[in-house]
Amino acid sequence: MKVSRRTLLASAAGVVALGKTAALQTPQPPPADPSKVRGKPAKALGTRAPSEKPQRQPRGATSSGTPHQDLYGTITPADLHFERHHAGVPEIDPKNYSLLVHGMVERPLVFTLADLKRFSQVSRVCFLECSGNLGRTAPPETTPQQLAGLTSTSEWTGVALATIFREVGVSPKATWFLAEGSDAALLTRSVPVEKAHDDAMIAYGQNGEAIRPEQGYPARLLLPGWEGNTNVKWLRRIELSDRPFMTREETSKYTDPLTNDTARIFSFVMDARSLITYPTYPVSVTRGWVEIQGIAWTGYGKITRVDISTDGGTTWTPAKLQPPVLSKAHTRFRHLWKWDGGEAVIMSRAVDETGYVQPTRAQLLATRGPGAAGYHLNPITGWVVKADGSVVYKQEAWG
Amino acid sequence: MKVSRRTLLASAAGVVALGKTAALQTPQPPPADPSKVRGKPAKALGTRAPSEKPQRQPRGATSSGTPHQDLYGTITPADLHFERHHAGVPEIDPKNYSLLVHGMVERPLVFTLADLKRFSQVSRVCFLECSGNLGRTAPPETTPQQLAGLTSTSEWTGVALATIFREVGVSPKATWFLAEGSDAALLTRSVPVEKAHDDAMIAYGQNGEAIRPEQGYPARLLLPGWEGNTNVKWLRRIELSDRPFMTREETSKYTDPLTNDTARIFSFVMDARSLITYPTYPVSVTRGWVEIQGIAWTGYGKITRVDISTDGGTTWTPAKLQPPVLSKAHTRFRHLWKWDGGEAVIMSRAVDETGYVQPTRAQLLATRGPGAAGYHLNPITGWVVKADGSVVYKQEAWG
Repeated sequence: MKVSRRTLLASAAGVVALGKTAALQTPQPPPADPSKVRGKPAKALGTRAPSEKPQRQPRGATSSGTPHQDLYGTITPADLHFERHHAGVPEIDPKNYSLLVHGMVERPLVFTLADLKRFSQVSRVCFLECSGNLGRTAPPETTPQQLAGLTSTSEWTGVALATIFREVGVSPKATWFLAEGSDAALLTRSVPVEKAHDDAMIAYGQNGEAIRPEQGYPARLLLPGWEGNTNVKWLRRIELSDRPFMTREETSKYTDPLTNDTARIFSFVMDARSLITYPTYPVSVTRGWVEIQGIAWTGYGKITRVDISTDGGTTWTPAKLQPPVLSKAHTRFRHLWKWDGGEAVIMSRAVDETGYVQPTRAQLLATRGPGAAGYHLNPITGWVVKADGSVVYKQEAWG
Repeated sequence: MKVSRRTLLASAAGVVALGKTAALQTPQPPPADPSKVRGKPAKALGTRAPSEKPQRQPRGATSSGTPHQDLYGTITPADLHFERHHAGVPEIDPKNYSLLVHGMVERPLVFTLADLKRFSQVSRVCFLECSGNLGRTAPPETTPQQLAGLTSTSEWTGVALATIFREVGVSPKATWFLAEGSDAALLTRSVPVEKAHDDAMIAYGQNGEAIRPEQGYPARLLLPGWEGNTNVKWLRRIELSDRPFMTREETSKYTDPLTNDTARIFSFVMDARSLITYPTYPVSVTRGWVEIQGIAWTGYGKITRVDISTDGGTTWTPAKLQPPVLSKAHTRFRHLWKWDGGEAVIMSRAVDETGYVQPTRAQLLATRGPGAAGYHLNPITGWVVKADGSVVYKQEAWG
């Protein structure tokens, strides 16, 4: 039986008082001259303007992408940060949270959330990206969100993993550690200890506030620049060892077959990539100046250049990068283009501080083979600006 | 007549189906072992963890402060950014929004929101601070939010004001412009044209998404480092002139009396300031290592040093600043302190790239006088850590 709240109210006691409330809650169009109407009072929590409705796009129950086409700058709002999990988002009472660190250590210890917060804090802005962040069979009607929504950037805050490793006295012989999540998948990954001495952290803060549930509340591993699934969320256990643990996910899924009959294990670092976010499907443009905008990122450090082509990859011109360009963070690029009204294919190509150049699809397939698994695919992608101003994704065949 | 929704449902048709829904919505405690329960599916919009409830604190209808004691890093979540307005938050239909730029210009023009978005974009992280951001008569039970909640930091995106000024052809003789908001207060301020050629922008993006209603949706003036009210929100008109307009707010309110019988008009730039955010009322600490944390900022550029005193201002030690230190943005500082269990007064003191040192209350009053208006007060403030570990605000008399 389906009963609308309104019907229900009308048939109930108290209909007069509550009916009035309901009427007041019916959205009213904004006033024609807002300066003639007293505005709304201060609120404990702000909300978006009614006409702004950016949303993630759930793909089944275990992933949702960031709406890049709706965003500005580099910070992804926390409620729009992509999510990816293997068994749903667990609910964790922060009072019951604990992290066990054991294995090849002098002093196995259990840390509560309050314990973790008592250590020296560190913050950094960085991207996270799922290694499966490419819609390979994308039709022309594909948005940047659908094509590559599984990357986002936040300011993360937490405790350096090296600090925790000093506290437990990690053995000099330990070279790997296992990170285990407390979700129903008990997601586990093996990570080299050297990453802890580089820039790994246990994060409990995101964009100024407590980390969000789907990002690992109350604490997650953060391995800047490394594939998303290694940044184990809802972190409950770290075990030190002298070898990788060869867990289910890292052997069965996160291993990349190559053309020379070998497989790459593990593919930790996310290669340089760029994504045009404007103009893209479904917007239309008009003749004249159009600013091509997008984001670029690399797990190897800083983006040093993003090239733009407006002729399908024949010629390239460097875009402007928005300072400050931060290591392992989304970098905003912009390029003013005078569109003459003819059909054009626009593309972007990222270059990072190692000199690595984002490959074409053909270059990528030359090493990975046509049967390449769906991970670590970062080809140059493009958009067709049609003569009528409409924009569609430039489809690519994946063999 | 007061009727709860629940009572209402029970007395209405459809009670079985809806009663079931209501029961499902009753909050359940988190599972003891989250790894034994399938988690929640992906969602279009994330929400905070149920136990995390940061909130702004409305002070009457026209202002609310950021909960600094609950935050990490430097970015303020958009729904927690402080708000201050003179006649409430207007509702503006972005389709009807327009900005008139006229006065001493070659081509008076009206820009729609789409027009503004078509120009080259620029992004920057910066703080905004209300010039009245000090609770002078604060009792010991004062949080950082109550003391100085009217400052926040966002990544702003928009069009450089200089770009718009080129488009309309601002006269070389124009030295000032009026900025007018479309709220019911029609808030107006005079701004020197040179700020447009420095770093002013018309912002329509905030922390990655469209600017929030209480921040000026759909477009506001952004004058990095200048007192909050000059960053006119809901911007509807800019008029170029060869003199300041001497508007009501800038003459009656935003003028600061000095001790030498003159008044300072105008006080645009916010001086350097720092605020300890941990440990502060109402937290308690325990003996041993305590990391003193906080934020510092200056309208004159970058923070170069924050000194910490744990003995009421007798001796000072530089804190660590979290890189990247950005110009005119909140900068996170941290200082590890070994608390011996005795009563202590902790204080922070910001220094900026001009060499300016945040003054004591006495130094500030020496130039501003005991009758100083409530604007541009940036004294060193402190917190008392009592022997029992409780922390209270160190009260200061304001003469």
